[in-house]
Amino acid sequence: MGMVGGSLDAFIGGVHRRAAIMDGEIELVCGVFSSNPEKSKETGKALYLPENRVYDNFEEMILKEKELPLGERMDFVSIVTPNHVHAAPTKLALENGFHVVCDKPITLNTEEAEEIAELVDRTGLLFCLTHNYTGYPMVKEAKHMIASGAIGKVRKVIVEYPQGWLATLVEVTGNKQAAWRTDPSRSGAAGGLGDIGTHAENLAEYITGLKITQLCADLTIFVEGRLLDDDANILLRFDNGAKGILQNSQIANGEENDLNIRIYGETGGLVWKQLDPNTLIHKTNQGARIIRTGVGNLSQAAQVHTRIPAGHPEGYFEAFANLYRNFAFQLRARWEGKKADPVYDFPSAQDGLRGMKFIDTVLASDKSDQKWTDFE
Amino acid sequence: MGMVGGSLDAFIGGVHRRAAIMDGEIELVCGVFSSNPEKSKETGKALYLPENRVYDNFEEMILKEKELPLGERMDFVSIVTPNHVHAAPTKLALENGFHVVCDKPITLNTEEAEEIAELVDRTGLLFCLTHNYTGYPMVKEAKHMIASGAIGKVRKVIVEYPQGWLATLVEVTGNKQAAWRTDPSRSGAAGGLGDIGTHAENLAEYITGLKITQLCADLTIFVEGRLLDDDANILLRFDNGAKGILQNSQIANGEENDLNIRIYGETGGLVWKQLDPNTLIHKTNQGARIIRTGVGNLSQAAQVHTRIPAGHPEGYFEAFANLYRNFAFQLRARWEGKKADPVYDFPSAQDGLRGMKFIDTVLASDKSDQKWTDFE
Amino acid sequence: MGMVGGSLDAFIGGVHRRAAIMDGEIELVCGVFSSNPEKSKETGKALYLPENRVYDNFEEMILKEKELPLGERMDFVSIVTPNHVHAAPTKLALENGFHVVCDKPITLNTEEAEEIAELVDRTGLLFCLTHNYTGYPMVKEAKHMIASGAIGKVRKVIVEYPQGWLATLVEVTGNKQAAWRTDPSRSGAAGGLGDIGTHAENLAEYITGLKITQLCADLTIFVEGRLLDDDANILLRFDNGAKGILQNSQIANGEENDLNIRIYGETGGLVWKQLDPNTLIHKTNQGARIIRTGVGNLSQAAQVHTRIPAGHPEGYFEAFANLYRNFAFQLRARWEGKKADPVYDFPSAQDGLRGMKFIDTVLASDKSDQKWTDFE
Amino acid sequence: MGMVGGSLDAFIGGVHRRAAIMDGEIELVCGVFSSNPEKSKETGKALYLPENRVYDNFEEMILKEKELPLGERMDFVSIVTPNHVHAAPTKLALENGFHVVCDKPITLNTEEAEEIAELVDRTGLLFCLTHNYTGYPMVKEAKHMIASGAIGKVRKVIVEYPQGWLATLVEVTGNKQAAWRTDPSRSGAAGGLGDIGTHAENLAEYITGLKITQLCADLTIFVEGRLLDDDANILLRFDNGAKGILQNSQIANGEENDLNIRIYGETGGLVWKQLDPNTLIHKTNQGARIIRTGVGNLSQAAQVHTRIPAGHPEGYFEAFANLYRNFAFQLRARWEGKKADPVYDFPSAQDGLRGMKFIDTVLASDKSDQKWTDFE
Repeated sequence: MGMVGGSLDAFIGGVHRRAAIMDGEIELVCGVFSSNPEKSKETGKALYLPENRVYDNFEEMILKEKELPLGERMDFVSIVTPNHVHAAPTKLALENGFHVVCDKPITLNTEEAEEIAELVDRTGLLFCLTHNYTGYPMVKEAKHMIASGAIGKVRKVIVEYPQGWLATLVEVTGNKQAAWRTDPSRSGAAGGLGDIGTHAENLAEYITGLKITQLCADLTIFVEGRLLDDDANILLRFDNGAKGILQNSQIANGEENDLNIRIYGETGGLVWKQLDPNTLIHKTNQGARIIRTGVGNLSQAAQVHTRIPAGHPEGYFEAFANLYRNFAFQLRARWEGKKADPVYDFPSAQDGLRGMKFIDTVLASDKSDQKWTDFE
Repeated sequence: MGMVGGSLDAFIGGVHRRAAIMDGEIELVCGVFSSNPEKSKETGKALYLPENRVYDNFEEMILKEKELPLGERMDFVSIVTPNHVHAAPTKLALENGFHVVCDKPITLNTEEAEEIAELVDRTGLLFCLTHNYTGYPMVKEAKHMIASGAIGKVRKVIVEYPQGWLATLVEVTGNKQAAWRTDPSRSGAAGGLGDIGTHAENLAEYITGLKITQLCADLTIFVEGRLLDDDANILLRFDNGAKGILQNSQIANGEENDLNIRIYGETGGLVWKQLDPNTLIHKTNQGARIIRTGVGNLSQAAQVHTRIPAGHPEGYFEAFANLYRNFAFQLRARWEGKKADPVYDFPSAQDGLRGMKFIDTVLASDKSDQKWTDFE
Repeated sequence: MGMVGGSLDAFIGGVHRRAAIMDGEIELVCGVFSSNPEKSKETGKALYLPENRVYDNFEEMILKEKELPLGERMDFVSIVTPNHVHAAPTKLALENGFHVVCDKPITLNTEEAEEIAELVDRTGLLFCLTHNYTGYPMVKEAKHMIASGAIGKVRKVIVEYPQGWLATLVEVTGNKQAAWRTDPSRSGAAGGLGDIGTHAENLAEYITGLKITQLCADLTIFVEGRLLDDDANILLRFDNGAKGILQNSQIANGEENDLNIRIYGETGGLVWKQLDPNTLIHKTNQGARIIRTGVGNLSQAAQVHTRIPAGHPEGYFEAFANLYRNFAFQLRARWEGKKADPVYDFPSAQDGLRGMKFIDTVLASDKSDQKWTDFE
Repeated sequence: MGMVGGSLDAFIGGVHRRAAIMDGEIELVCGVFSSNPEKSKETGKALYLPENRVYDNFEEMILKEKELPLGERMDFVSIVTPNHVHAAPTKLALENGFHVVCDKPITLNTEEAEEIAELVDRTGLLFCLTHNYTGYPMVKEAKHMIASGAIGKVRKVIVEYPQGWLATLVEVTGNKQAAWRTDPSRSGAAGGLGDIGTHAENLAEYITGLKITQLCADLTIFVEGRLLDDDANILLRFDNGAKGILQNSQIANGEENDLNIRIYGETGGLVWKQLDPNTLIHKTNQGARIIRTGVGNLSQAAQVHTRIPAGHPEGYFEAFANLYRNFAFQLRARWEGKKADPVYDFPSAQDGLRGMKFIDTVLASDKSDQKWTDFE
């Protein structure tokens, strides 16, 4: 694996690195960790990379690695830069035959996303978008249960992603994470909506297997001086007639990353919360069951994404690592000329494109006086 | 106290009776417990009432009681019938000088509600609408904290009231509670919205001190054959610029009465759940505090609505009883020619009227293609 | 009902009154509320009792009430005084034909308890000791489940009653509740052990149906200057071979009344916590179920001790009231010459006697160098 | 790092590997993964090791690696075998100049443990015993708070480690994990006590900084046919006068790995549960605070053991990885001739020796009729 972005003071780069290497299937062999070559070198050194595999820019990395013999050169590129630097390295990597793992959102805008989706299609290379929350075993279990009819036809979906860390104008206080996320030139047309709202959208569609068809959005910038939305309340309608709510916020004072979803069907309900990720509650009017990672008869999908027996909390890194490990499994299957088991899934470029269209649709709805805006 | 409604097989009548008498301030002295005189008599007997104080209809009760000497006759009427039998006994009672406690919603429609609000105003009699959830000590504490600026200016309010008991067409199975609640002639133009959505609306406005000014509603009848809404998703805008969401449901399979509210202000957040009513969480980005009934320095409002030291769970009956006890205190203050302490508050006819207008506005919004419908 | 003790500033008196009258089965008709006649009168007045039914001492009350005609006079006495004033009024009441409800512990020492147990036996009168926690519906359900074999033969029982309110020497600061509870002349030979440890012992034996046969105790007085134990750690052995732990504390800083019990059998486990009393967790190695008051198929015992549908929290007062209501039902059955349904149970004088012997045994064990001290 | 034990079907080997490599500080370079050379080879291959670095037995590994040049050869040995194969490879490794990480318990008996502690002392090499639960950030925070006086002098400690997986005789059903843990020849003289009770003992002493001085134990074998204890209830006394309880169980049906600790001091209490590891509750009689990983002003000790911002659950692997990373940091400091920062701590051979003595003391107490048995 070669990495683009993720210098020592970045947040998500370290997550990707740990997630990638944790299962012993992937090795970091090269990288360009910053647009500042000095910083890139410093990071490469801290990561014990040989100097000649730490590059000054992604173009150099992709082209030079391509010249190395197979087996020695990187097998894929992991892109962990801010949003505005997703598209270019992704395209160059794909065009030069490298598979890609890319942080979300896939690009800065829908046009770029369409290009990439098309390019992935055309090259037939692997592409993984790290909607990491889909990697949790209990998310897999929930998806499996709904597909198996455990709660009947879905009627109502409530998905939320509240955070509180942007309750004040921290982007002007030197907080690097806040600065690029609230800057339209680096983050895109959406703020919190793109950063976390798309996770919520992706999670809801992933678990339920449904598609949002219409929505009605109310976005807000609560913090004076901020340039992008920091709060969103959205009504949803799904393709099977289900209704729902999506809300995300970065001004929900005191909330950490309380991504959570509640799904109610004709015969039961499911509740999952990222802050207690090893628990899935299955509710019915006759009583509730606590489903736990590693306990009882779980779906194959839940089992293969769990590393250890019940009662040893697996968290954010392990869910994230499930994406990388599945990517590695699919890559290996390809090398071995086998068909990969679909249980080892990960979000695709099409999911990324859908996320970009979701952002477009929400922004359009927010500006509209009409109640409903069609999605897709 | 004389009671209208509340035969032995009713649900809310028993709640009112226990709530009324629990604190030793109120005595049940007469009643008409059913439109069926036999059933009324049977209930009266089970409640140890003398036969001559069990009446055949509310007109008889009000007029005969009026003839009894003060001190012997009932001091006020408690009305616990289905919605369509709220207005008539309320009006007759007020017109004959009796104070009134009435279950919510105040009436079947806004016109009746306006009449009653006007009548209360004109007679100067006491009127209490039992939005019972406002009686919880931690609700009082939350209201006090917001009024005192503990979380800064409110930005976001999420209030929910999910239930699951109407996930199937139980109204045709002999479930009396379901039958009248889903029958437009007895329940009014709204189903779940009127039954529980108004509780959510009242709670949000009560705690925050804000008024909803605009809303955007999506109501649904999920259960085939049902005549009234069993699910509502509503976007809210408040008079101070805050945004919000109100959702209620009676098809949220597996939910009991999970009324809950989350309020985020500029400097903190508050979370309260009816199913864990003695706990209020005060969140900030620096950490959270667990506020508990009876623990530490609470507001006077929380204290006077708590009966016992911390750690003895007070529940639904006690919250309900707080309304009755406050009503009794205000009545006594009036008799004693004193000004009642405003800490002993309870919902008014104006609150009831506002609830009816809320229903009207939501129904109008639901039918509208426009995003926002003004409230008030 | 006539009451002994429970002046306005007492804690448990108000609980008993509310618990007694809440269900409309019992009326307070007379009382002696304090050893101070002035205070007794003042309380009687606040409770709207006629002056001639407020007495100066319990002897006067019992003897004068006895002279009143049946139907007018009190039917039973409720004794809510500190421990050292339990035995005398209980005996006098029983000797004069009055049934008795008495707060726990039954007496100041085992000798008195034996006398009372014998007297109850001899007179055939009803006697209820208010081990109120046994009144919770989920406690009834747990007892029923174990009796029905739902978790197999019981192997391990952990019962705890931690409080924190005596973490400092509050008994010298004017705290009346603390003062008598820590005074050997009013509380007896045990402090926290008698006050709350006996609740834990009673709960464990009540739910499991087992008897403790041996124990090993380590009592402590942590707060300097205190005269009675404020902490107890006790190993238990039961008559079926089960093992266990009982711990109670009044110096567990920050704990309210966190009475809780965990019971593990051959095929499952049960967990109940008084602070979340409407929930019972049924655990097995294949997964856990959340059992909730009013949800699904519960035992008759749970159902008849629940007043309202699921999701309306019933708390401490309602559990307490279940004892009084059952007492009233048994009294009425007796009057009607019927056999009372055993589902309407309440703790007996024998339970009270067992509690006193438990205290004796623990105190003996605490002083002993031997590991095990036999109980009974 | 070279590994002894941890074939593909082992449980703890995979944990150690992930924990070791996750932070990019440690690389697996060689190993002997099974006493069966075929199985060892197979595992080595699956882990992408070169064939010549997969050995047939630990003697071969240690001696051959020693011949490799520094920088190429393994820097330390990680021992993840069943208990009876801890001492021999540890001793050989230390004698040949290799640092050691060893799973707990350190050895099969105290004599071996003393030898190793002495050897570590003599060689001056690094030794880490993986009492992994001490690696959680909130455990570090709790330790820091107590050391800083945040809850005053400690009075009461309750530490528990209940599991349910051995509620039946699974050791005869082909469960390899159960088989060696319940076999005295491979596990030692203690069953659950050694497997999980020592974790509880270590955690209690680590967090409080206190030493257990006396104990009173009741061990049980509940499952017929089992050879070692599957349940333990133990009273504790600490060197500062604090009292406590330690209980562990493997027959607590339905429990996963619910290691938890409650500590009450003169001015406050702390509660931590391994199943919700990112939360620490700080209780006082004036209210409780929720302390969360990554939120607010935490100790340096908590901060340096946390990888990502609040709200991304870090779990078992990350806590385990903290031990390996600290070991790597101390190793590097040594190489660089620096003094390692004591904040990067890990359990020592002395901790392992203390654990063995704890086992001896509990077993002696269990057999004794005397209440108290001295520890140390």
